[in-house]
Amino acid sequence: MEYLEQIGIRAKEAESRLRILGTEEKNRALRKAAEYLVKEQNRLLAANGKDMEAARGKGMPQGLLDRLALNEERIRGMAEGLLEVAGADDPVGEVIQMKKRPNGLLIGQKRVPLGVVGIIYEARPNVTADAFGLCFKAGNAVILKGGSDALSSNEAIVALLQKALADCGLPETAVQLIASTDRQLTARFMKMNRYVDVLIPRGGAGLIRSVVEGSTVPVIETGTGNCHIYVDASADLDMAVEILFNAKTQRIGVCNACESLVVHEAVADAFLPMAAARLAEKKVELRGDAEAMAAEGSILPASEEDWGTEYLDYILSVKTVRNIDEAIAHINCYNTGHSEAIITRDYANAQRFLDEIDAAAVYVNASTRFTDGGEFGFGAEIGISTQKLHARGPMGLKELTTAKYIIYGNGQVRR
Amino acid sequence: MEYLEQIGIRAKEAESRLRILGTEEKNRALRKAAEYLVKEQNRLLAANGKDMEAARGKGMPQGLLDRLALNEERIRGMAEGLLEVAGADDPVGEVIQMKKRPNGLLIGQKRVPLGVVGIIYEARPNVTADAFGLCFKAGNAVILKGGSDALSSNEAIVALLQKALADCGLPETAVQLIASTDRQLTARFMKMNRYVDVLIPRGGAGLIRSVVEGSTVPVIETGTGNCHIYVDASADLDMAVEILFNAKTQRIGVCNACESLVVHEAVADAFLPMAAARLAEKKVELRGDAEAMAAEGSILPASEEDWGTEYLDYILSVKTVRNIDEAIAHINCYNTGHSEAIITRDYANAQRFLDEIDAAAVYVNASTRFTDGGEFGFGAEIGISTQKLHARGPMGLKELTTAKYIIYGNGQVRR
Repeated sequence: MEYLEQIGIRAKEAESRLRILGTEEKNRALRKAAEYLVKEQNRLLAANGKDMEAARGKGMPQGLLDRLALNEERIRGMAEGLLEVAGADDPVGEVIQMKKRPNGLLIGQKRVPLGVVGIIYEARPNVTADAFGLCFKAGNAVILKGGSDALSSNEAIVALLQKALADCGLPETAVQLIASTDRQLTARFMKMNRYVDVLIPRGGAGLIRSVVEGSTVPVIETGTGNCHIYVDASADLDMAVEILFNAKTQRIGVCNACESLVVHEAVADAFLPMAAARLAEKKVELRGDAEAMAAEGSILPASEEDWGTEYLDYILSVKTVRNIDEAIAHINCYNTGHSEAIITRDYANAQRFLDEIDAAAVYVNASTRFTDGGEFGFGAEIGISTQKLHARGPMGLKELTTAKYIIYGNGQVRR
Repeated sequence: MEYLEQIGIRAKEAESRLRILGTEEKNRALRKAAEYLVKEQNRLLAANGKDMEAARGKGMPQGLLDRLALNEERIRGMAEGLLEVAGADDPVGEVIQMKKRPNGLLIGQKRVPLGVVGIIYEARPNVTADAFGLCFKAGNAVILKGGSDALSSNEAIVALLQKALADCGLPETAVQLIASTDRQLTARFMKMNRYVDVLIPRGGAGLIRSVVEGSTVPVIETGTGNCHIYVDASADLDMAVEILFNAKTQRIGVCNACESLVVHEAVADAFLPMAAARLAEKKVELRGDAEAMAAEGSILPASEEDWGTEYLDYILSVKTVRNIDEAIAHINCYNTGHSEAIITRDYANAQRFLDEIDAAAVYVNASTRFTDGGEFGFGAEIGISTQKLHARGPMGLKELTTAKYIIYGNGQVRR
């Protein structure tokens, strides 16, 4: 415990300093860090080379090797990410609201850093710089636990971030790495309520589940997206085809990609052949129920499991429904609380879908792919929250803060 | 697991109905429930009589018996609580913000119910009606697990609440009670992530700790308050005495009562005798450091433990400091994130205290006793959150909701 305890204590020390840091001080450190990443990229590439070699040695699959790899372009991307965060508005210090009470007390809410944020993630070294940048700009100390296979890369990156902080006269412990491959340590990290205010897991469903189940520190769940597009009876079918094509194929391995098509039976015969033809351009496999198969010959049979599957692949499930009630019930049963869309020309159905679908982002006549910090207009994001507490949907800088009540009095006592 | 699973499934069924309930429908059910509580109070008193008899039989201490007891006045209080909630603004449906993006998408955030709320509390039957009222008005289904010693009372109360719901054509399972004294069941309840969106423990430090440690469902920690008042060198000492007296003695067993006085050494000699004389009216015992004892003869020696103790009693710890830095460091070390106050005439020190103290509510020149939903102007509260995620400070109806993004498009796809 001693090693983790020391990390916790140092994070707390940094926290009290970071809480009152000016925006320009933070931006200077972020720019300095970006500079070091590029200037010292050979160190990073060398460290990453060690990780890559070890990973290849133990037969890591190509997809994971891709995520682990650093190259000049990726390092430039990390640096640009830090510069982008430096350019973003500082959320800290904003007074969200303030009202005068009848007794003269002026009661307001002010945005302040969360404190110490823990990030648990997979072997993707670029997350190291991204997570630091966002947490730091929001005034938080951050403790990182990255995937073991990226340990050398992460150590090299964190060393440069700390060097930048030190150069700017700021506490290096604003960012710390748990430099260990011991799983027991991670388990204990998840119970450090005394030192860590929130844990944010970033990665696949398995990682997220293990953090939710193993943690006593509050967790913000980010993650999986089994996103649906419902094509209503009144839909503009051409629009529906283009939105579906975009949401399914524009980028395949992301959480806001469409995984399931729900279609009103009245338009199934007309729509499914159109959709199948367009999706065939990207060789998307369709798996549907009997009605869908009857409407379009290329559709394969779907199993119950398909309705709940986030494929992250060129596969789409197709469910036909008799009315919007069935569509809403189906989606609320199988969705993962991420992004859901209706394509319709019917005012009442649009409003019902917006009201009744339980998800972080509910769309009318647009692609689910827009659920993204940048697309929503608040810059880089630390993840997409699919749970309901604190933050729901894309989490930007604001979601890495909390608020405290500030009260100005002149001697008030309670009667 | 079957029993809990059924409760979970029924809560989820109620949830989808409650999500779209109109304000007037909710208010009607709340008023009907208030009516039944009063009209059928004999049933409640009889059920409570059974609990009281059993509790006396096993030697429950008087303080706990007091909390367990129902009488006509308390039942009227419960009914009035429900009527008050019926009269409060409905938080659901408010669109918090909406902006048009350059691509024409209209992206907004709409306040919606959390879903299913679990409340774990002690043997205080009045919490049963209060918690239902707040959760229900915010559109949530609620699952209650009250202290075993109040089981008969809680069953009787929940039966009346369900009767009121049924009378209004609403799902009775909007409120359910885990009618068991099996601790294993409570442990499993805390891991029902599939059915429960948030757990709110209400009670003493032990209960809250056990929920935080045992739960995989997100928890909102409410609770303990080791609240400080710092009397600065420039303080109006008369004002400081009155605020301290109010915060310490106006009500003794509450979480926003003052437990510790921090005083600048420059005014210790003048202030401590004044404070001691006023607090003597209520026989408050003072425990201080050596400097405090030198300034006021009646002060007893404090131990290290005193700095971290929430007495909930006529006891106050007294710490002297050399400057505001020491005051802030001491308070940030020992406070529980609840309510902290500075008494000062110094502008810079007031601002520094507001900026640097890490707590849910930070006061200048006012009593910590104001940290309360009613005093803050948002009506009844479900508790005071001392953690930083989702809600911090008094939690009213708004804090029992979440927001979802709603997006109006006209065919947008992502490039």
